[in-house]
Amino acid sequence: MTYCVGLKLNAGMVLLSDTRTNAGLDNVSTYRKMFFFEEPGERAMVIMAAGSLSVTQTTIARLTEAIELPEADGSGSIMQAHSMLQVATIVGNTLNRTLREISDRTRELQQQATASMILAGQRRGGEMRLFLIYPQGNFIEATEDTPFLQIGEHKYGKPILDRVVTPRTSLADAQKAVLLSMDSTLRSNLSVGMPLDLAVIARDECKVGYKRRIPEGDPAFMAMSAAWSTALRDSFGKVSL
Amino acid sequence: MTYCVGLKLNAGMVLLSDTRTNAGLDNVSTYRKMFFFEEPGERAMVIMAAGSLSVTQTTIARLTEAIELPEADGSGSIMQAHSMLQVATIVGNTLNRTLREISDRTRELQQQATASMILAGQRRGGEMRLFLIYPQGNFIEATEDTPFLQIGEHKYGKPILDRVVTPRTSLADAQKAVLLSMDSTLRSNLSVGMPLDLAVIARDECKVGYKRRIPEGDPAFMAMSAAWSTALRDSFGKVSL
Repeated sequence: MTYCVGLKLNAGMVLLSDTRTNAGLDNVSTYRKMFFFEEPGERAMVIMAAGSLSVTQTTIARLTEAIELPEADGSGSIMQAHSMLQVATIVGNTLNRTLREISDRTRELQQQATASMILAGQRRGGEMRLFLIYPQGNFIEATEDTPFLQIGEHKYGKPILDRVVTPRTSLADAQKAVLLSMDSTLRSNLSVGMPLDLAVIARDECKVGYKRRIPEGDPAFMAMSAAWSTALRDSFGKVSL
Repeated sequence: MTYCVGLKLNAGMVLLSDTRTNAGLDNVSTYRKMFFFEEPGERAMVIMAAGSLSVTQTTIARLTEAIELPEADGSGSIMQAHSMLQVATIVGNTLNRTLREISDRTRELQQQATASMILAGQRRGGEMRLFLIYPQGNFIEATEDTPFLQIGEHKYGKPILDRVVTPRTSLADAQKAVLLSMDSTLRSNLSVGMPLDLAVIARDECKVGYKRRIPEGDPAFMAMSAAWSTALRDSFGKVSL
């Protein structure tokens, strides 16, 4: 499995993904699940992927190829799309086409391939937008009321987000929130694993201003995780029934 | 859906279940999911059920009928069983038989019925035991390393249990832990709902010494929930990245 989360706040967008993939329990690998598409100052987009690796890798490869070799009118290039809505449509169509091709071939084996994606981005002059794209290619968008979207193993890390994230959350607090959400998921589910990829797109900068890979044993992350455990246990001690 | 959780600690066992059932989103009802089988001082057993209501109700009805009308040798009565292991086997067999009968009838409709149960109990002279019984009728047991078992919507409420529950947790803290685990689940998932049923079996008492139904708007539960939210937000403010 996978855990990816995206926050859309007044101050910008914060994205976090893990890197663990597994085919069964004895075939565990590390793969990047966060992909950047940038022309700094003009447009910045981040795509995170969950699901069958063959589907997500092929989808990203096709999106990349369409940028390098756009059709005459550029209609398939997410770097030439006129809006984030158009980008979401291209990503959704590419994802669903790839999934259908692979499913056709695996149907006889009774295996089910599936995949979903989170797309975050802003074009110069446009709004910041954050989408969750389903395997069918359709999508939903984060709003003021629901400022975060998750894919993969989303349940363990949802309670902390439900409690602390609002559109007014600062970018610093938002990074803390997604990392604590990931920390809960890492502790409770083996199929999600370090290292992590963290990215921040500040409002109207149209670039991924901050990118960080957090490796296994990262001192800052470990300290935060330990402090959070202690704080939770202290809080637990203070609350009375 | 449902959320039920059972803790087996050195001091005793603590059980908590919600009461929401739904057939689709527009057919929501309240049903007890916690059932008591007691001969105080001799044996105390609690069964909690998750899954298709028709399966769990029929299973409990059959277990009850087998107590009232035992076979000549009493082999089907969980009140006459010689060990908790035998009780788990009877419950597992009854659950699986009921499920298979219902599945045979619903197969043509392409509907899938499923159900699982948590069984907690102690006979005089025996050990406290806590089992999770699968739809297939087989079961696993809580141990020193894994002192809690969950059925239904278990993921939202797992992180808090992972962090605070050990076999040395007191019965008072254990009640707090399961209620906070339920609180996170209630906040994040609509299919789990109040009122709640809470039960405590202290070690070697062989009776359900404490039973409480916690209704919607219960002042003590609301105060604990609010205090926990505040404590979490305070902790969040103090932890630094």
